[in-house]
Amino acid sequence: MKKSDSADLPSGVRARLPRYYRYIRELFGSDVLRISSSELSSMLGITASQIRQDLSRIGQLGQQGYGYNVKDLYSGIGEVLGVNIGFGAVLAGLSGIGAALAAHPVFEMRGVKLRACFDDGLTGKEIAGMTIKPIKELEDYCREKRIDILVLASERGQAPDIAAAAVRAGVRGIWNFTGEDIRAGRAKNTLAVSDINLCDSLMCLCSRLR
Amino acid sequence: MKKSDSADLPSGVRARLPRYYRYIRELFGSDVLRISSSELSSMLGITASQIRQDLSRIGQLGQQGYGYNVKDLYSGIGEVLGVNIGFGAVLAGLSGIGAALAAHPVFEMRGVKLRACFDDGLTGKEIAGMTIKPIKELEDYCREKRIDILVLASERGQAPDIAAAAVRAGVRGIWNFTGEDIRAGRAKNTLAVSDINLCDSLMCLCSRLR
Repeated sequence: MKKSDSADLPSGVRARLPRYYRYIRELFGSDVLRISSSELSSMLGITASQIRQDLSRIGQLGQQGYGYNVKDLYSGIGEVLGVNIGFGAVLAGLSGIGAALAAHPVFEMRGVKLRACFDDGLTGKEIAGMTIKPIKELEDYCREKRIDILVLASERGQAPDIAAAAVRAGVRGIWNFTGEDIRAGRAKNTLAVSDINLCDSLMCLCSRLR
Repeated sequence: MKKSDSADLPSGVRARLPRYYRYIRELFGSDVLRISSSELSSMLGITASQIRQDLSRIGQLGQQGYGYNVKDLYSGIGEVLGVNIGFGAVLAGLSGIGAALAAHPVFEMRGVKLRACFDDGLTGKEIAGMTIKPIKELEDYCREKRIDILVLASERGQAPDIAAAAVRAGVRGIWNFTGEDIRAGRAKNTLAVSDINLCDSLMCLCSRLR
């Protein structure tokens, strides 16, 4: 699959791919060599036709009466997801959820290297084997080390300035835990942002309990 | 707005409402008394027609040439989101991200009361003013205290059993941080699950950086 195709994926497909990847990863670790869209459907709770459509988008075409080759699916989806590229990341903000993220296995599991942590209130302390640096060093650090991803878990109000500094330094993706919307780079469409918004998620759950 | 209407909301509308609520909350705290869909559009980066359609779904009809009354919007959206109902929650799993959640302001901000924490490895210790209980007490606790929400941050493999115990005890919503899909109660459609899946979210971000 060509890089240009990946950039054109509809957001719905892109959002479902990590889930496909998790399940197919488990199959890959087992003895299953091939799987049909209807088997995937009952595992995932997504219709078989949706699955066929999504997988055809990334060039994975199952064969009538055979299904999909598990190994091809695993490597094909992994490629689209950039699993083996080895992106570099920094983390800003270590009070609250940031501290849990610094030591979280998610980075290693997905081939992302967390290189440094920044927090003015905790400068000089150690976390997950890293010495915490002041925020004012973040921009130069990202530029020098060619950092791809900013994990943003700073306190309310700091997010816009930190995001802007990272974007100036060439960061292309922000994983945003602050609950604030990131506007830096939005106009130019040069920045990818994935939001983990705890407030919105909890409210969404509560609304379904009414 | 009637309760039955809230249950019928399309998931897309439901997912956007918390974001509307956050912005309108800020307006409500300022001197702005009314706002047009096009003003909301430029704040939120959502088209004005989408906003009008979403808000009409929850019975909020702006007036031509006037727009929306900010106070009505704030209370109307808050009602659909169940902001003032005072749901009770318990948290299971305090290694990793669970510990950050126990002390997180998100519960209080959204009117949810975190009543107890459970973790076999940390039983008897204190967190955020609560004494940590063993997992085996979770089911009875939820039943006795009529808990609505399980916040699930347990380690890999434990999630299905804990979720099943909570559902047996009458829990209606799971806020799931485990990265595992929750199947308990899925068939009967009696359980609402909101997933915060760090792996999927990070992979989705990485795929956009390729």
